[in-house]
Amino acid sequence: MAVATQSLDELSINAIRFLAIDAVQKANSGHPGLPMGAAPMAYVLWNQFLRFNPKNPNWFNRDRFVLSAGHGCMLQYALLHLTGYDSVTIEDIKNFRQWGSRTPGHPENFETPGVEVTTGPLGQGICNAVGLAAAEAHLAAKFNKPDAKIVDHYTYVILGDGCNMEGVSGEACSLAGHWGLGKLIALYDDNHISIDGNTDISFTEDVSKRFEAYGWHTIHVTNGNTDLEAIAKAIEEAKSVTDKPTLIKVTTTIGYGSPNKANTAGVHGAALGPDEVKLTRESLGWSYGEFEVPAEVTEGWTKKAIETGASLEAEWNSIFAQYKTQYAADAAEFERLLRGELPQGWDADLPTYTPADKAVATRKHSEICLNAIAPKLPELIGGSADLTHSNLTELKCSGDFQKGAYENRNVRFGVREHGMAAICNGIALHNSGLIPYCATFLVFADYMRGAMRLSALAEAGVIYVLTHDSIALGEDGPTHQPVETIASLRIIPNLLTLRPADGTETSGAYKVAVVNRKRPSALALTRQNLPNLAGSSADKVAQGAYVIADCDGTPELILIGTGSEVSLCIAAAEQLTAAGHKVRVVSMPCMELFDEQSAEYKESVLPAAVTKRLSVEAGTTFGWARYVGSEGASIGTDTFGASAPGGVLMEKFGFTVENVLDKAKALLG
Amino acid sequence: MAVATQSLDELSINAIRFLAIDAVQKANSGHPGLPMGAAPMAYVLWNQFLRFNPKNPNWFNRDRFVLSAGHGCMLQYALLHLTGYDSVTIEDIKNFRQWGSRTPGHPENFETPGVEVTTGPLGQGICNAVGLAAAEAHLAAKFNKPDAKIVDHYTYVILGDGCNMEGVSGEACSLAGHWGLGKLIALYDDNHISIDGNTDISFTEDVSKRFEAYGWHTIHVTNGNTDLEAIAKAIEEAKSVTDKPTLIKVTTTIGYGSPNKANTAGVHGAALGPDEVKLTRESLGWSYGEFEVPAEVTEGWTKKAIETGASLEAEWNSIFAQYKTQYAADAAEFERLLRGELPQGWDADLPTYTPADKAVATRKHSEICLNAIAPKLPELIGGSADLTHSNLTELKCSGDFQKGAYENRNVRFGVREHGMAAICNGIALHNSGLIPYCATFLVFADYMRGAMRLSALAEAGVIYVLTHDSIALGEDGPTHQPVETIASLRIIPNLLTLRPADGTETSGAYKVAVVNRKRPSALALTRQNLPNLAGSSADKVAQGAYVIADCDGTPELILIGTGSEVSLCIAAAEQLTAAGHKVRVVSMPCMELFDEQSAEYKESVLPAAVTKRLSVEAGTTFGWARYVGSEGASIGTDTFGASAPGGVLMEKFGFTVENVLDKAKALLG
Repeated sequence: MAVATQSLDELSINAIRFLAIDAVQKANSGHPGLPMGAAPMAYVLWNQFLRFNPKNPNWFNRDRFVLSAGHGCMLQYALLHLTGYDSVTIEDIKNFRQWGSRTPGHPENFETPGVEVTTGPLGQGICNAVGLAAAEAHLAAKFNKPDAKIVDHYTYVILGDGCNMEGVSGEACSLAGHWGLGKLIALYDDNHISIDGNTDISFTEDVSKRFEAYGWHTIHVTNGNTDLEAIAKAIEEAKSVTDKPTLIKVTTTIGYGSPNKANTAGVHGAALGPDEVKLTRESLGWSYGEFEVPAEVTEGWTKKAIETGASLEAEWNSIFAQYKTQYAADAAEFERLLRGELPQGWDADLPTYTPADKAVATRKHSEICLNAIAPKLPELIGGSADLTHSNLTELKCSGDFQKGAYENRNVRFGVREHGMAAICNGIALHNSGLIPYCATFLVFADYMRGAMRLSALAEAGVIYVLTHDSIALGEDGPTHQPVETIASLRIIPNLLTLRPADGTETSGAYKVAVVNRKRPSALALTRQNLPNLAGSSADKVAQGAYVIADCDGTPELILIGTGSEVSLCIAAAEQLTAAGHKVRVVSMPCMELFDEQSAEYKESVLPAAVTKRLSVEAGTTFGWARYVGSEGASIGTDTFGASAPGGVLMEKFGFTVENVLDKAKALLG
Repeated sequence: MAVATQSLDELSINAIRFLAIDAVQKANSGHPGLPMGAAPMAYVLWNQFLRFNPKNPNWFNRDRFVLSAGHGCMLQYALLHLTGYDSVTIEDIKNFRQWGSRTPGHPENFETPGVEVTTGPLGQGICNAVGLAAAEAHLAAKFNKPDAKIVDHYTYVILGDGCNMEGVSGEACSLAGHWGLGKLIALYDDNHISIDGNTDISFTEDVSKRFEAYGWHTIHVTNGNTDLEAIAKAIEEAKSVTDKPTLIKVTTTIGYGSPNKANTAGVHGAALGPDEVKLTRESLGWSYGEFEVPAEVTEGWTKKAIETGASLEAEWNSIFAQYKTQYAADAAEFERLLRGELPQGWDADLPTYTPADKAVATRKHSEICLNAIAPKLPELIGGSADLTHSNLTELKCSGDFQKGAYENRNVRFGVREHGMAAICNGIALHNSGLIPYCATFLVFADYMRGAMRLSALAEAGVIYVLTHDSIALGEDGPTHQPVETIASLRIIPNLLTLRPADGTETSGAYKVAVVNRKRPSALALTRQNLPNLAGSSADKVAQGAYVIADCDGTPELILIGTGSEVSLCIAAAEQLTAAGHKVRVVSMPCMELFDEQSAEYKESVLPAAVTKRLSVEAGTTFGWARYVGSEGASIGTDTFGASAPGGVLMEKFGFTVENVLDKAKALLG
């Protein structure tokens, strides 16, 4: 094929392909196969359908695009570059996968404007897309008026075989079907190749039929390599189906255009090599140099995308201006959300308690907090993975988020922890002020850890409500009893793990969780009742640890507790004090926040001179040595729990005042 | 209905129901709803189809039964009791969910003979069942002869809505369909109720259609409450389909028989209450007392089950005796497997290295180890989640485990980490000597953590091969770079986390992993090349940590490294020694094993008197304080990584000899 004969469409598609080929070749690292095969569908989508403004990546009403097959990120970088985004220059593309570049090895929303979510771990992106579409549906139901649709965009995804093999995608797609998210359109790059070779070695299911079973509309484009018209018709059809999400299976050839590597696993995740790059240039009639973009593409596509984008945003701005006139209060609220500004006094109703107040479980305090803030914080939306009445997460001021009732805020996730967390990441990364929360038993954080890590990395401020936080949950036994789980969350960078000791601290934990919009929070809450403590403080939760009960002068011993064990420490301290000892008790609801405090503050809570320290937490002792030091000790559980009533277990595993006293006395000598 | 009119079938089914009702009522804790609704299908299965010997729960050729909906464990305990197992007496049932009982809150294979796997976390049991069926298929292909089928059993599962909502079940069921596991039969208790209420609030997909998409045969029993004949016919039909697994959707009423609570979420997870227990007795015509089993049931079912079981095993014993005569070598090998005895010299070909040997990655050493042991260890079976040539896990002595080629040992799991791990648990818990291994990138341990925790709890000796074990993997960036992952595995009780420093330690890690048949192991392996170290030892890996390079006399400073950072410590120690310091280097491939050593050994490696200690590990510093002490320091990564070449990252994040020297000098003062 001679260059002269290439249409603008062909030139544009090949420009995508060769930016990917050249970038991966220069880095000698990356995944050229997907961009080469998926360039046609991506081009049709971005050129004919996707509504965005490259000069304002944050324009609210843009269509959202997610590359769920994140390893193919050069596809996305090429699209951003060729449609005129300033975030990805040709220099950025030349620096693909290098230190400090805006073109990392997988798409990262926090690095590259125009990238909506962080993908790479397979299956996550499609779930994020479900969250983005759910956020759109929710805001549309809330703000749109018959004569003014200010929220009105599609969410498009490109996903691959890997995403479809991951169970997490099934969870979220089942929900998307249930919710009837008609503005979610997924293009499945059906290229039959994964890293291990042809997918027929492990993946022979009928994917479209599976999605139909979920309640999706499905379409098959049999020639995704060259039939641009069929791709466009399929997207048109998908848009016309308004009550169901659509899966467009687009059959393609991975590494299309590479004479020797197309349709092989070899082109999936490695540079083509200089010889094959040359042969591919010949095969696709590409006489342009490395990283060269034909002027026809810049003129015919880039310029057009910039102009179209500007006019789309201008059009929306005028609709919004009109809306502002007619619906001033709604518009003000909408703008507040977009600014990510919390309403004044949102936390005014968060309660504090005194020891005279009834002992209740912190999960119950959490329910009170959620319902204290929800009426003032309409952006709070979420629910539980089928444990609503155990996690106590229902917002009494709202109904269920369902098909036809998207304005509601109680989300019924079903028994789908991983999909739930990944959907919440999408809701948070819609960047429209929504504050998603989700809930399950603490031990099942393990099921959704892949998505929780991405909340932290992608700066998605999801609030995780994790109840039944120790062996004290009792009879359900070791499969349901967290032991190592709290520590496992503390070690995820940028995630705050909070374990409040009573009602007052639970209110404090919610304050921390709500204000931290770029850090997810995990709240570990008890099933069992806890007394309200005399010295507890809501505000001091933000400092991570504080002195909750103290002696006069320098303590001989410091007891450090978290959550349900703080009251044991206080009771033990009282007895030790009565016996003439000087004992301080520190409540440490959040290690991560304490670590961030000034050296002075830390020294004021845990003076270096006081080396007799005992930590008490119904979880692994791993990680406590840094607070109790070489001369300290820890009471914890380093084995699995057992099935018995919670009170029996706490006694058998040593979470008693007596045992705290024994260990304390051993330290005191 | 008067008691007199109840048939043996009805009496038996109601006996199951009331043992469950009474046990949950007595404990005032548990899940009566599922046992009440699923009793008919369970009875038909156990009475007419399931082949087992209650007096020998470990009889090899028994059909395997898995209650994937593990919260309904009273169903299983009632079945075990009523079919004559000694492991569940009526006293055990009266002690349901109590301290020390054999009837914990969810089924636990390590507590109760007759329970095959540990369930409760939803979705796991059906995946374990896929593993059990795969193990059967593998052993059958390997040992059976045209005239002697010594391996020939079914795997039956009861699963519920919750299991079907979990993505992990979709992963494993897609594989089961791909593999065509015809002897896997799943009964889906379609009761339309989960904890949050009617499943129509979040789960409206067509489950049977989804399973058909996976390649399963499906059957619907519309009246699972009373139509025993339809249930039996469905199981017959399922058995007749030999090239596909079968899903039998059995529509039932949760809490069947309870006048006020049947078909409500209220009966799912709470005792009925004394009044409703009474009303349910009336409604089902049950005049027997608490925990009373009618004599007709004991005579008509229990006794028969014991007799049938004895004759089934006797029959098999005679087949096996014949087999032993005709195929002595095969029989000896089969018996060795069942004894769980490793072949003599299985580890003879595991290599050791000297510094003269080429620097290679520990993932490559792992490949060499796997292929050194595989020919001598035919029970080794496993593979990767679509990263075979990155994880380097292919056994060159075998082909792919596929439909029609079940004798092979390379399992192609596809991109299904969670399902993979749960299937491996099933293979291990088939208790026929098979040693399953599975592989992915270390960071994706997060995806399968739910199942890894169950490997540890259920004492399933799965070997996890986890490569690309630090930011040094490079360009793939932070989504793919483990930082907190190693620590997250170290804290799981009963799981051994091993991070070898070179080829010799990798051989040592495999020795540990293979001999530990009741403890899973996680091997953290590098992508990048590492030098072979002078002092490294394969045998000392079993001690968890050892002195790999030492000074004369008492050290001033101890450097502690793991994996790829041990060589940095040694290089730094050499420079410090040259500068006149006394420095010891400790390699710590396994914290857990070190913690188990004698106090003397620990003191010999890390003398209490030496308080200047520096740990170096390309992972979180969390957890290191217990080894470096209050006066020590740690080099690690407590933030996410970045996308750049691995060497660049290691430098930027401080994993250089220079930085080790700087920190060491700061400690030396």
